[in-house]
Amino acid sequence: MSSVVVESDVQLSLDSIRESLIRQEDTVVFSLIERAKFPLNSPAFEEPRCLDSGNSSSLTEFFVREIETIQAKVGRYANPEENPFFLDNIPHSVFPSHKYPQVLYSKASSVNINKRIWDVYFKELLPLFVKPGDDGNYASTAASDLACLQAISRRIHYGKFVAEVKFRDAPHDYEPAIRSKDTEALMKLLTFEKVEEMVKKRVEKKAETFGQEVKCVSGDDESEKKYKVKPSLVSRIYGEWLIPLTKDVEVEYLLRRLD
Amino acid sequence: MSSVVVESDVQLSLDSIRESLIRQEDTVVFSLIERAKFPLNSPAFEEPRCLDSGNSSSLTEFFVREIETIQAKVGRYANPEENPFFLDNIPHSVFPSHKYPQVLYSKASSVNINKRIWDVYFKELLPLFVKPGDDGNYASTAASDLACLQAISRRIHYGKFVAEVKFRDAPHDYEPAIRSKDTEALMKLLTFEKVEEMVKKRVEKKAETFGQEVKCVSGDDESEKKYKVKPSLVSRIYGEWLIPLTKDVEVEYLLRRLD
Repeated sequence: MSSVVVESDVQLSLDSIRESLIRQEDTVVFSLIERAKFPLNSPAFEEPRCLDSGNSSSLTEFFVREIETIQAKVGRYANPEENPFFLDNIPHSVFPSHKYPQVLYSKASSVNINKRIWDVYFKELLPLFVKPGDDGNYASTAASDLACLQAISRRIHYGKFVAEVKFRDAPHDYEPAIRSKDTEALMKLLTFEKVEEMVKKRVEKKAETFGQEVKCVSGDDESEKKYKVKPSLVSRIYGEWLIPLTKDVEVEYLLRRLD
Repeated sequence: MSSVVVESDVQLSLDSIRESLIRQEDTVVFSLIERAKFPLNSPAFEEPRCLDSGNSSSLTEFFVREIETIQAKVGRYANPEENPFFLDNIPHSVFPSHKYPQVLYSKASSVNINKRIWDVYFKELLPLFVKPGDDGNYASTAASDLACLQAISRRIHYGKFVAEVKFRDAPHDYEPAIRSKDTEALMKLLTFEKVEEMVKKRVEKKAETFGQEVKCVSGDDESEKKYKVKPSLVSRIYGEWLIPLTKDVEVEYLLRRLD
C-alpha cells in the first residue's frame, strides 16, 4: 500500500465500508428498540388530519418533511451518505458547508429509493416489531420513526458505496452486464450468501445484547429473558428487507455507472 | 389497592416512575454511544457563523431552536415529560393534540433547568466522552447532540414526577421545609445514597453491555474489550451531573408545591 493515500481512496476501501456497515447495525438496532417503547400509533402516519387547511398530510409525513428542511439548512444532504425522503429541491445550507469527498460516480449518485423504504417501513416492518395500540404519544413516536427511517435509509443507500468499490475492483466483471442492462446478472455478481447469513446472525446477536434488560444483580433466570425487540425479527428485517433493498440500490447504481 | 384506578394515579405510582427512569437509562446510554461516533466538532456549537445575516447563533443552537418549533407543532410539549430548551412561547400544535393526564401540581409544573443542562452538556459532559477533533460532519453531530440533550433533559425533569409522588406519599414530612424554603432540608429528604449507588452501577453495566462490539463468533479475548463510551464515565456522568440535577429539579418543584 502506498504511504500517501488520497482521502477518497481511504473512504472507499472495502474494509472501511464494511466497518461502517457493521457500526450502522448498532444504530439500526438501537433505533428499533427505541421505537418499540411506543405502540403502533397508526393515526400518526395513516390519517391526514392536519388542522392547517392547506395541508393534508399525516402528522408523521408533515413532521419528516419539516425536519428534513431544517436538516438541509444545516448541511445534512451535502453528505453523500444521506438521502432525503421528501425534498425534491434541497434548500441551501445557511451555514458554511463541509466539502465531502466525491467518491461516488456523479451520474449514479442520485439513486434514491426512499419512497419504497417509507412504504415498506410503515406497512411491513413497523407492525411486526411494535405492539398494536394507540397511546396518543404521536410527537415522540414520529421522532422515533424518523430515527428508524434515517438509520435504515442510510444503511440501504450505503449500497452506492458498496457498488462503487466493487465496480472499481473489477470493472470488467460488471461492464457486460451493465451494458446489456442485465439486472439478474448484476444481482448474481453482488450476492454473497455466506456474508448475508453472517450479517443476519450478527444483528440477531446485537438485538439480544442491546435489547436485554440489564440489571445490577446478575445471575438472573436466563429462561426468563425478555427482549425489547425480538432478536429473530431483527434478523428477518435484515434478511427480507434491508439486505435485498441494499442490493437493489447497488444494481440501480451500477446500471448508471457507465452513463 | 382499589380495583378502579384513575389514570393519573397509575402514572404516579412510585413503581411506574422507577420503571420509566430505568428504561430512560437505556435511551441516555444509547444516545451517548451514538454521539461518540463523531469527534467533538466544537465549531458546530461554539461559533456563531450562520450565513443568514439576521442570525448569529451557532449551527447547533439554530438547529435545536428550529427542530423544537417543528416538534411543538406536532404536540411534543403537550406531554408534561418534555421541556423545550429554547421555546419561550410554545407554538400551538397543528394537529389535534392528545390530552395528557395532569398529574403535576400546576404552579410547579413549569420548572425548567434546560439552560443549565445545555451549558453542562457542551462544556463539561461532551468533551469527556467524545474524542477531540473536527470532521466537519456538523449536521449529523447536531442531530446526535439533540438526541442526547433531549434524553438527558427528560431524565432530569422527571424529577418533577418523583417529587410529586414523594410529596403525595408524605406531605407532612415536606411541608415545614417547603414553608421555610429550606433547600438543604429538602435535599436531605430526597437523597437516598444506596439508591444512587445502585443507579450508578446499573448505568455502568448498561454502558458495558450496549457499547461493546458484538461479534458473530464468541470466545473473543476478554482483555481486549473495547467500549464505545467508557462505562465508568457513564457512571460518573450520572453521579456528578444527572442525579444531582434531577434532585435540583425535585427541590425547585417542591419549593413551589404549596404556592
